[in-house]
Amino acid sequence: MSDTKGLLIVLSGPSGVGKGTVREAIFKENPYHYVYSISATTRQMREGEVDGVDYYFVSREEFEGYIADNTLLEYAEYVNNYYGTPLAMIQKTLDSGKDVFLEIEVQGAMKVREKMPEGVFIFLAPPSLSELEKRITNRGTDSESVIIERMQKAREEIDMMQHYDYVVINEDVNRAVDQVNMIIQTEHLKVDRVVDKIKGQIHQYFQEEID
Amino acid sequence: MSDTKGLLIVLSGPSGVGKGTVREAIFKENPYHYVYSISATTRQMREGEVDGVDYYFVSREEFEGYIADNTLLEYAEYVNNYYGTPLAMIQKTLDSGKDVFLEIEVQGAMKVREKMPEGVFIFLAPPSLSELEKRITNRGTDSESVIIERMQKAREEIDMMQHYDYVVINEDVNRAVDQVNMIIQTEHLKVDRVVDKIKGQIHQYFQEEID
Repeated sequence: MSDTKGLLIVLSGPSGVGKGTVREAIFKENPYHYVYSISATTRQMREGEVDGVDYYFVSREEFEGYIADNTLLEYAEYVNNYYGTPLAMIQKTLDSGKDVFLEIEVQGAMKVREKMPEGVFIFLAPPSLSELEKRITNRGTDSESVIIERMQKAREEIDMMQHYDYVVINEDVNRAVDQVNMIIQTEHLKVDRVVDKIKGQIHQYFQEEID
Repeated sequence: MSDTKGLLIVLSGPSGVGKGTVREAIFKENPYHYVYSISATTRQMREGEVDGVDYYFVSREEFEGYIADNTLLEYAEYVNNYYGTPLAMIQKTLDSGKDVFLEIEVQGAMKVREKMPEGVFIFLAPPSLSELEKRITNRGTDSESVIIERMQKAREEIDMMQHYDYVVINEDVNRAVDQVNMIIQTEHLKVDRVVDKIKGQIHQYFQEEID
């Protein structure tokens, strides 16, 4: 594994689609397969969330310090909160041959695509927009005006889908998890990732025939 | 399924790598998933092979008739035998939304790539060339001079690997089958295949909000 670089896997999609739930299930199932890159955010911690596990929950002042110091791969302001991806660990992990898993907002994912176009970009889509509206409403964390804002935002975000590589529809969490795992395994079978290794072996075989 | 075209899946690789065994196992496991495109060949039928199932076994004269009538997607001459892919059924099956599975020689696969670049090209590679030599020898169907010719050919064929999309190493047949199935399922999740459908749904949702 360490002779090839790891893959950067980006799971993204509209707010409320269930990115966090899918990511948690992937890591519960395969705790050592991927290295999860924890984002920093200024949004309020929700019930059940843990600082340093789900996000690094930081103040606006701290976050603006990261921006000033240029230590983020990307950051975005979303419904009046900052979200961002600390850079240092990602590059180190990829170089060591391990895959890095990012779960981020669409705006941020598009910035990562610009900087690391070789990443694998997966768009998690809701089964329908009515279903998305239901999920956001049932979560009960947002006021009605925020819900309307999120739905308009979702429309814009789904328009960004074409800049991704794959679409996984989050109808059933287990199925979505299987599909994300399948995509990652398949990406590892791409010719570009193995061609040099195999050509080396061929060279060696015919070398030995001659010797 | 019928609102999108089927995928053309091409499984190929050097002679002796086990393409036929992998293809048989795929079809035994998922008999209705893919439509198998049976090739025509002028080579001798081997023990256990069935005409019209493994290949259409035809005479040189018949084959040259197909060439003259231009009814083949591709054909190639390989170790003094013709191999070719009848065209008519493939296009019809793809249009109906079903995937077509081709198992062909490398030379032929490269011609299919030129004509249908949107196909999914999978290179089945031996775990090593020494292992490939062993398999060809153990098959016991080829004379020593044919074996040497096949090994030189294999070297050239493995050089063609970079024109494929994926590499599956046939170390264990079951694992190779799983990987081929995984590649095909993943290809169905590519953005280009679903984007129009999802954008239609969004349009409909916001249309209903306005009404």
